[in-house]
Amino acid sequence: VAISLDETHDPGRRSFVESANVPACDFPIQNLPFGVFRTEPGEQSRVGVAIGDQIVDVSAAAAFFDGRATAAAQACNAPFLNPLMAMGPRAWSDLRLALSRGLSAEGDGMRLRPYLTPMAHAEMRTPVAFRNFTDFFASIFHATNAGRLFRPDNPLSPNYKYVPLAYHSRASSVRISGVAVKRPKGQRKEPDGPPRFAPSQHLDFELELGAFIGTASELGRSVAVGEAANTIFGYCLLNDWSARDIQAWESQPLGPFLGKNFATTISP
Amino acid sequence: VAISLDETHDPGRRSFVESANVPACDFPIQNLPFGVFRTEPGEQSRVGVAIGDQIVDVSAAAAFFDGRATAAAQACNAPFLNPLMAMGPRAWSDLRLALSRGLSAEGDGMRLRPYLTPMAHAEMRTPVAFRNFTDFFASIFHATNAGRLFRPDNPLSPNYKYVPLAYHSRASSVRISGVAVKRPKGQRKEPDGPPRFAPSQHLDFELELGAFIGTASELGRSVAVGEAANTIFGYCLLNDWSARDIQAWESQPLGPFLGKNFATTISP
Repeated sequence: VAISLDETHDPGRRSFVESANVPACDFPIQNLPFGVFRTEPGEQSRVGVAIGDQIVDVSAAAAFFDGRATAAAQACNAPFLNPLMAMGPRAWSDLRLALSRGLSAEGDGMRLRPYLTPMAHAEMRTPVAFRNFTDFFASIFHATNAGRLFRPDNPLSPNYKYVPLAYHSRASSVRISGVAVKRPKGQRKEPDGPPRFAPSQHLDFELELGAFIGTASELGRSVAVGEAANTIFGYCLLNDWSARDIQAWESQPLGPFLGKNFATTISP
Repeated sequence: VAISLDETHDPGRRSFVESANVPACDFPIQNLPFGVFRTEPGEQSRVGVAIGDQIVDVSAAAAFFDGRATAAAQACNAPFLNPLMAMGPRAWSDLRLALSRGLSAEGDGMRLRPYLTPMAHAEMRTPVAFRNFTDFFASIFHATNAGRLFRPDNPLSPNYKYVPLAYHSRASSVRISGVAVKRPKGQRKEPDGPPRFAPSQHLDFELELGAFIGTASELGRSVAVGEAANTIFGYCLLNDWSARDIQAWESQPLGPFLGKNFATTISP
């Protein structure tokens, strides 16, 4: 897919939304991350894009775009990003380019102003209806450190340098950052006695990078390495919460399960 | 939940659908399993119930029921069982009771005859949009036998008799029986050499019992043992396909992953 990423990432582009041009701002016009928001508790959630301290209500602005960008913006009238994600990389890029131009300080971008909502008045929501959630054991440093907790004499498994190690985690307990995470109860092995059911005593989280696969693969068909990047809708920061005492006792031979099920949190 | 299961399971009840009364029939009036079907390739799939060699188009017959059974039947106008499953055990039981009475040889059940489709003219579809799929390591005999393949000297892990062992499997590759299952490629360890990427040489399947959790639990709230049965919408037969050579090489320390992802098949 040949797309001009250069224009949307142009460090010289400025937005008519002045808060986006402040150097320390997380959401300059070069970023434009997607999320799902609402402004009233009972209101339908829909897709928005962050710019400065504002959110663009993307589907409300659909009429200002053209071609694939209009169709992509219309798919943003949904409580999850899934319809947009299913449209594929050309639609994503066309919409992103249209948003970058529409939010630019040059040209007629000001026409998007009526579709801006202050972040301070919005509630962010879980952005995706997750169908699968795979946790990869990336980083040899992390794998060695984590392995040492459970297998001090042999921290790195023999397969680590050959095959990407991963397990399915719990798709239905992914939430956005800021929600309360409740300490789970579970079974752990006492050093000198039988296992005991109690609140976890060893709760932590790992900081990870999440990747959203947007387009479906066909069961039984391989995805070529050259196609793989085109299936990725985007990235987020992710906290992988773990109850290490529950995990240590349960995870042989089938891997982590209840020690991870209680929460995974992502940037909204 | 107090429900008369006795009447719908009454072995003396017969159906006006004569094929359901043959002793060897899989679908007598005491069974009434739910599934999703369509009769034309482009047609909207919807929920049906098997009776003899016929399928009841449940939502089409909604007007013949009353109370909760009508609402439950209306929820069957969907390409997946999920809306019905979300309604909870009283709705499920009321609908089942209404179907049992409506298909009975006594009373006015014959009014359901216009909503019957011969199974021979129907195509069964994947019945549920799966959000999670958990594979439990049930049966100590199976766990010992399977453990012996990978850990001959210590087949049963120390936690087995204390905590239910399970892992998340791939929710998006569950299909109905009869679909082609493609032999997966993957990496396996050669006895005297580096790992090799090739089609799996050790494919098998286990026969298992599947349980469908119908009603959502609330993240952070325990489900009491006494409530658990009320969350189960139903059961199915399940074939757990496994590529044992891929699984043996990949599954330490995180459990089975690619060795299971390629297919799980269930009764429709």
